[in-house]
Amino acid sequence: MSTAEPPAVAPGATVAELGEEALIALITPMLPHAPGELVGSGDDCAVLALPDGCAALSTDVLVEGRHFRAHWSTGHDVGRRAAAQNLADAAAMGALPTALVVGLVMPPTTTVDWVRDFAAGLAAGCRECGAGVVGGDLSAGESLMVAVTVVGDLQGRAPVLRSGARPGDAVVHVGTLGRSAAGWALLEAGLAPRAETIARAAACLDAFRAPRPPLHAGPALAAAGASSMMDVSDSLLRDAGRIARASSVVLDLGEPEAVLGADVELLEEVAAVLPGTRPRELARWWVLTGGEDHGLLATVPQASLGSLPDGARVIGRVREASAQGPGVLVGGRSAGADLGWDHFG
Amino acid sequence: MSTAEPPAVAPGATVAELGEEALIALITPMLPHAPGELVGSGDDCAVLALPDGCAALSTDVLVEGRHFRAHWSTGHDVGRRAAAQNLADAAAMGALPTALVVGLVMPPTTTVDWVRDFAAGLAAGCRECGAGVVGGDLSAGESLMVAVTVVGDLQGRAPVLRSGARPGDAVVHVGTLGRSAAGWALLEAGLAPRAETIARAAACLDAFRAPRPPLHAGPALAAAGASSMMDVSDSLLRDAGRIARASSVVLDLGEPEAVLGADVELLEEVAAVLPGTRPRELARWWVLTGGEDHGLLATVPQASLGSLPDGARVIGRVREASAQGPGVLVGGRSAGADLGWDHFG
Repeated sequence: MSTAEPPAVAPGATVAELGEEALIALITPMLPHAPGELVGSGDDCAVLALPDGCAALSTDVLVEGRHFRAHWSTGHDVGRRAAAQNLADAAAMGALPTALVVGLVMPPTTTVDWVRDFAAGLAAGCRECGAGVVGGDLSAGESLMVAVTVVGDLQGRAPVLRSGARPGDAVVHVGTLGRSAAGWALLEAGLAPRAETIARAAACLDAFRAPRPPLHAGPALAAAGASSMMDVSDSLLRDAGRIARASSVVLDLGEPEAVLGADVELLEEVAAVLPGTRPRELARWWVLTGGEDHGLLATVPQASLGSLPDGARVIGRVREASAQGPGVLVGGRSAGADLGWDHFG
Repeated sequence: MSTAEPPAVAPGATVAELGEEALIALITPMLPHAPGELVGSGDDCAVLALPDGCAALSTDVLVEGRHFRAHWSTGHDVGRRAAAQNLADAAAMGALPTALVVGLVMPPTTTVDWVRDFAAGLAAGCRECGAGVVGGDLSAGESLMVAVTVVGDLQGRAPVLRSGARPGDAVVHVGTLGRSAAGWALLEAGLAPRAETIARAAACLDAFRAPRPPLHAGPALAAAGASSMMDVSDSLLRDAGRIARASSVVLDLGEPEAVLGADVELLEEVAAVLPGTRPRELARWWVLTGGEDHGLLATVPQASLGSLPDGARVIGRVREASAQGPGVLVGGRSAGADLGWDHFG
């Protein structure tokens, strides 16, 4: 990205009318800098100094019509969400997310206002944990698509992998579960305008449109000695199954209603807005199979339970794998670990 | 990316038929590992150890219908090109490109064969400089789109920025100029099948479909003391203009015919394949305004001219900015520095 003077923009102007260089000049000053940013936007690469010489690195794409719908979410929402889901990946390694680079593909008819709103959302998402946007690429295309790569600083700690869960560890979750799925269901049913007036429903719509993962809990759980960790992006069951398989253990979770308490009540109340459903069953379904809340799922040794970060809830226990192999139990019963989201299904 | 067993694939199967996890299991073993790769694909993030604690970071998107056409390029070509243009960005900072993460968006009807071919191309591109693919994300979408982020290791050297060119420095280029534009023109004119039988035309088609930037020349030019550097992605004139403005100098280039010698003759011969053109003028146009060869454009102090890497050609000299300000001269005449590619134009 270059660093020319921010240009004047006519109201409702499209990105084709403004042109690429002017658009970059408009966005760049809106975005926060990264800690350790030796070279920022405007050259071939950004350059980051990482004090311990280790970089955690992950990439994610968001596609209009698949991960979001332009008439359901503002540019600000899409920016926040793109930031959040990537920052959560770095936090899930126990790293402090430090920098993002962002590719944005959009139809030439996209308004400059939308892009400005997107950049503001991206910046707001980064400010949650002090990360910066250090580079990007813009291109025209048929539909909106956002590709974000995150760099995290492990701060001298070993990365927390999915493969370290040990029998006897507690299973811990920080953040929300099921809210994003509930928000999606309200939008899909066309109930969002009515639901926005209900505080609990609004919280679910927000969770879907612009999730706020507990980013600081990632480094805190790592410092507390977490043995495995990931962010819940596809679903609690599917992602718990990934830890179980990677660690060759069983994750024995309690009943959602029991372990999540007030949050399940919130979901039941929102489920009751949807006609013709059984609220209790639907709320349970959202918690177990809903993705994209991007909370953190971790296993921690019992000795670490006294030093968990705020908001951490114990939701189960790690057990030895039985003859059936690794897997997930919910309330003592075996759960299909592949319930969740397949991007080509 | 997960690391399950590579699945069996029926001939002509689509990605929707195979499913996301199986597709990842198929691709992952095809991709090379990165130097310093502490954690590779299969967790929330990859983790890279960078000996000097500095990471060069850049991202680029490739969109079907904009940067490539699926009926012009194979999956292998697209993979090579996606790797090459990103690796070149890291090399242009003087960094050794070490790792890529790759987002791939594709219609559900995309064949698994195409994806396998793409992964092979990506791997081949990485092997040019010993880089690895350490993570990725797959998603369905309306059209093909590839988003790549590169990490480069500065190996203890300062990054070579665009802003360091000083009056008296030589302007140096390594790699090809105009070949990618010539290849595009042959494809656009529908002449590719005929042109492929002509070796020189085939070289241009290859340059467009799967460029091979001089990646090792980046760290070598940095070690030789280059004062500024970038890769030529938009055009020689546009990118020279960027160095000129960032450094507040004039880049005084010779005539393309004189400085590029045999390469301009090659382009003239290819231009003669196109009906109704003046080959000499067209070849000159390709050299000055064609992008995407991803050669390296650098400025180096005169004292460094003895230690340039193989293939480096002196194509001009840096001068003090005149009253007209920074800019680019070609054969002594002022050139429009904004000739080249605007992604929304």
